[in-house]
Amino acid sequence: MFLKPKETNINNENKIVDNLRALSIDMIHEANSGHPGIALGCAPILYTIYGKHLKINPEDPDWINRDRFILSAGHASSLLYAALYMSGYHLSLEDLKQFRSLHSKTPGHPEYLVTPGVDMSTGPLGQGFASSVGIAIGESYLREYYKNHGHSIIDYYTYVLCSDGDLMEGVSYEAASLAGHLKLNKLIVFYDSNKVCLDGNTNMTFTVDIEKYFTALNWNVMTVDGEDLTGLDNAITKAKQSALPNLIIVNTTIGKYSKWEGTNQVHGTPLTDEDITNIKEKLGMRDISFTVSGDAKEEMQSMIQNRCSEIYDKWQQSFEKLAEETKLELENIKNKNISLPNLDINYEISELETESLRESSSKVLNALADRNPLLIGGSADLSSSIMTNLVNGGNYSKDNPLGRNIFYGVREHAMGAIMNGISLAGIRNFGSTYLSFSDYLKPSLRLACQMNLPNIYIFSHDSISVGKDGPTHQPVEQLVSLRATPNLEVFRPADSNEMIGTYKYIAKKKQGPSVIVLGRNDTKVKTNTSITGVEKGAYIVQKEQKNISAIIISNGEDLDLALEVASGLQEKGYDLRVVSMPSIELFKKQKQSYRDEILPFGVKVFVLEAASSYSWYEFVYNEKYLITVDDFGYSGDKIDVLEEFSFTKEKITEKIENLLR
Amino acid sequence: MFLKPKETNINNENKIVDNLRALSIDMIHEANSGHPGIALGCAPILYTIYGKHLKINPEDPDWINRDRFILSAGHASSLLYAALYMSGYHLSLEDLKQFRSLHSKTPGHPEYLVTPGVDMSTGPLGQGFASSVGIAIGESYLREYYKNHGHSIIDYYTYVLCSDGDLMEGVSYEAASLAGHLKLNKLIVFYDSNKVCLDGNTNMTFTVDIEKYFTALNWNVMTVDGEDLTGLDNAITKAKQSALPNLIIVNTTIGKYSKWEGTNQVHGTPLTDEDITNIKEKLGMRDISFTVSGDAKEEMQSMIQNRCSEIYDKWQQSFEKLAEETKLELENIKNKNISLPNLDINYEISELETESLRESSSKVLNALADRNPLLIGGSADLSSSIMTNLVNGGNYSKDNPLGRNIFYGVREHAMGAIMNGISLAGIRNFGSTYLSFSDYLKPSLRLACQMNLPNIYIFSHDSISVGKDGPTHQPVEQLVSLRATPNLEVFRPADSNEMIGTYKYIAKKKQGPSVIVLGRNDTKVKTNTSITGVEKGAYIVQKEQKNISAIIISNGEDLDLALEVASGLQEKGYDLRVVSMPSIELFKKQKQSYRDEILPFGVKVFVLEAASSYSWYEFVYNEKYLITVDDFGYSGDKIDVLEEFSFTKEKITEKIENLLR
Repeated sequence: MFLKPKETNINNENKIVDNLRALSIDMIHEANSGHPGIALGCAPILYTIYGKHLKINPEDPDWINRDRFILSAGHASSLLYAALYMSGYHLSLEDLKQFRSLHSKTPGHPEYLVTPGVDMSTGPLGQGFASSVGIAIGESYLREYYKNHGHSIIDYYTYVLCSDGDLMEGVSYEAASLAGHLKLNKLIVFYDSNKVCLDGNTNMTFTVDIEKYFTALNWNVMTVDGEDLTGLDNAITKAKQSALPNLIIVNTTIGKYSKWEGTNQVHGTPLTDEDITNIKEKLGMRDISFTVSGDAKEEMQSMIQNRCSEIYDKWQQSFEKLAEETKLELENIKNKNISLPNLDINYEISELETESLRESSSKVLNALADRNPLLIGGSADLSSSIMTNLVNGGNYSKDNPLGRNIFYGVREHAMGAIMNGISLAGIRNFGSTYLSFSDYLKPSLRLACQMNLPNIYIFSHDSISVGKDGPTHQPVEQLVSLRATPNLEVFRPADSNEMIGTYKYIAKKKQGPSVIVLGRNDTKVKTNTSITGVEKGAYIVQKEQKNISAIIISNGEDLDLALEVASGLQEKGYDLRVVSMPSIELFKKQKQSYRDEILPFGVKVFVLEAASSYSWYEFVYNEKYLITVDDFGYSGDKIDVLEEFSFTKEKITEKIENLLR
Repeated sequence: MFLKPKETNINNENKIVDNLRALSIDMIHEANSGHPGIALGCAPILYTIYGKHLKINPEDPDWINRDRFILSAGHASSLLYAALYMSGYHLSLEDLKQFRSLHSKTPGHPEYLVTPGVDMSTGPLGQGFASSVGIAIGESYLREYYKNHGHSIIDYYTYVLCSDGDLMEGVSYEAASLAGHLKLNKLIVFYDSNKVCLDGNTNMTFTVDIEKYFTALNWNVMTVDGEDLTGLDNAITKAKQSALPNLIIVNTTIGKYSKWEGTNQVHGTPLTDEDITNIKEKLGMRDISFTVSGDAKEEMQSMIQNRCSEIYDKWQQSFEKLAEETKLELENIKNKNISLPNLDINYEISELETESLRESSSKVLNALADRNPLLIGGSADLSSSIMTNLVNGGNYSKDNPLGRNIFYGVREHAMGAIMNGISLAGIRNFGSTYLSFSDYLKPSLRLACQMNLPNIYIFSHDSISVGKDGPTHQPVEQLVSLRATPNLEVFRPADSNEMIGTYKYIAKKKQGPSVIVLGRNDTKVKTNTSITGVEKGAYIVQKEQKNISAIIISNGEDLDLALEVASGLQEKGYDLRVVSMPSIELFKKQKQSYRDEILPFGVKVFVLEAASSYSWYEFVYNEKYLITVDDFGYSGDKIDVLEEFSFTKEKITEKIENLLR
């Protein structure tokens, strides 16, 4: 609940801006680390956004219908924290003094869930910009979704501050071109055009005509001077009336008021004591660290209160009137408890003998989506190949914001970043491409892992068995790269049973991203695989008959071959156990007793997976027990390619026999 | 040497185009796999480039001064192979029939070094486009380099065919914006604007105003109809006079003449027998697979001969007149034997007690560059932080094409792709960014590995010890991801000695990419480290005194800690050996006897590296012996962050002691 609204009298706006500047450079000075250049240059922008436009309640920083602010130029964190402090968020001066210290509320780059009011983790350039497009998509979907149910309960803007660096990154282009196509007009991006990057002036490398460029991408573009507070205010007002996404080019001076203003020297190095003294003198401020004008802080907060309190209170009243079910749904969206409630996957196991894993995935995904309207997704132009189209979903567009299939185009990286934004908006979502091309979106996937967002990645064509498309389309190192990424759970299900198990597990998850890796080819529909086994990461798919000779661990498309090999060896007198391990991460989370049950101590273990050995050394005695792929593949019929890598029943049987003899 | 030139009489140009079409669809039909849509739509473009403009000698496909052609839309491989066949390259009809078969000369996507006339491996979209910018940079550098020596020996154009998909990818934007900035006017890019992508019409997702967009990026843009052979010809002629890089927008019809022309159904599926019969009927061709008009083929070849033979012969004469040394240099560039000859690194080991690894790297890199003019490089806006600036190099620009420092801007991905292009042009080159952001360029790095290009990647800030910048800037999984990538050699040197060893080894390499991973912080300058030890991947940096208790493997910035821990344990009566392992790949290539000498069988092994465990399971008994990092880091003072992960002498000593007791 807000404090009682006060009269607004904007007498101190320059003082507010200067306090933001002073606090920022004090924080950086105290931490002896940080980026004063952008903080000094962009203080007027943050003042204008927080002071005059952002619909927020600092007492309720997670309010679902708040306007979002994404600091794509994450290195301006000190300025953001200063603005949050001045706006009345629960950040103390002591917190600001802890800037960049371990476990503080003010880390070096903004971190989601660490600081109240920080809507996304940023730092790697381009990501914030691109994810904001996802937030805008999410907003439009939820707005329409609730409107359709008769509620005007979701309706907010997404503001972004980005830098030259953000706009040089390809991911921002991909996202901007999609945002323009989708006419996401509730997106308002400020571009800090300061003409300086880390290594020198931007004219050494970046001479794009930004206005023309964004116009070509179907954006509404305006230009304002960075010190013109009225101009900044008016630009936002105009942007709110636009039918297109908005770019406000702000001509700023990096390191404004510093001795080094306008140069790259002020980008990422704390200012000297002398420089700070001089700046504060120019600003007419006392030269004492962390001194804040009480008037300025009070005025900033009352501006926010006067603008937002009635809106917030009215919203709360509307919310209270909603049905309990709807309230609960909104609470879940707000808290990102976006597990999917309806898990009763009505999916008929194929009566065919074989089915490709993409096809199994498609059936389960569609069954799940049909029961859960807050599951949406898309593909980087491969939905027809990976079969991730939601048959009853419709296509997302400006005219159909309730469409649940997003056509990302050949923009894997933006897809990754936009998935983060959609999750941040509170909608469960998936994205698909070939596993080889997961490399393209890795930087965004990493951020999803850091924010623990429940994104679902569906990566198909997962090994050399892709065949004819050749080595560029055949993943090798991708699986271990994903498995080694913290907070990520990777699944390589072997058939339709395990597919159901995988999706069920993922649907139940409240937090953390998941990857489902799919083979391209037909796989046997098996009877001994398990739906529930997936939850434990690994289970026995075929037990030894009597006296165990060895264990083969396998998964995904390779499991059929492992079972064949085991049968062949059985005939030769070797008694093998076959373990399906769709998820190493989940298996490693099990109790030691379960692990020992599946992989008893002292029994020889082989691993069969057509991907890098690095995933599997942990489970075997030495590299001879690995039947894996450590070289790039070839273009050719998949049988020929597999043969080339000795991935045949005969060769593998021989290899295992030699080690068991 | 060329055949005798013949008179050109272009009587059969439509027949040539139609033969390209027919061959392509026959190949796809035979392979039962491939992409007929683009082949049918773009045949006139390939005819015009090869028939009327490309300066080539099919008998000498690696001629150093040939014009380059990069098929960025790699899925049009069948069309490229057809054009190479018709042009007289050493490809037989039999080769075409082997399309997409194992070990054929006609793989599913073009592969460098597999097919004569293929200038680069392509397939992952955007890569060819972006690398062509690197080829153009390389050409300009070599042109000027030899001009400076009085020789007009390098002077060629780079042609590209790209698709919608290429232009949707962010990497093409990054590269295009840099190419426009650098005014690389010898770049001529055809854009196959067919309005269709894999999942449907491009207007579902891609509505950029391409002409305005490329104009904003400082390109010269023209538009031509895809069936207008004269128009295509004239556009190239005009492009050759441009002062800016050129984009020729070609309005084509995907799957021209097919029953499915103009739709996404014809993108990636072989045509039916009936459709092929109908197409051939429309083209007035016999309906027999792989039938080629002798007239058409002869005419195509004589067009090339008439245009190029004199130029080629004159060039050979000029070449013969060059000094032996220059000839050898050019031969090396041509054969990509671009090892660096001058290895006498005149580098004084620091007299300081400590030196950051970035600083050691800077000294060695500069020493190497000063002696080898064909080593250039750049950074994605981090040269001042990673210290990869070549002090005597000058900055590369339109006005200074002999500048050896390339300011890539915040464009990691384009940097990766452009590095590939520069290597393909025959110049040894490096690129630098933070290890965390190596993710951004991974797709290009993977292609470098597949082409075995000798790129040098310098990735700094390599662990949680980055400290205050926080988890987004702290790599965890990147090291294993790189190590698991085939053909890549990864180095994590521990001090200036190992730095010299690393650069020496890399400089000697003729083929294959290398990664040098650097810590951010000061490291002790040690006396027991080895320059030559690096070549073996690992060596004993501190031997046990008498009876070995255990071994600690470590490397890079972590080695100091390992040595400290070993000393502490020595005092407690444990006799430890410390092994520095800067390169796992090189160590695994050593003879078993050497490996056993370093890591004797039966001795307990610990590993200390502040990165993912996945790299190291191979070397230890179980995970308890790993002192590694498997979670995201924190923002904070580096000492606090390391402490949080138990990376202190005390904690590690205790851990090891417990396992040795």
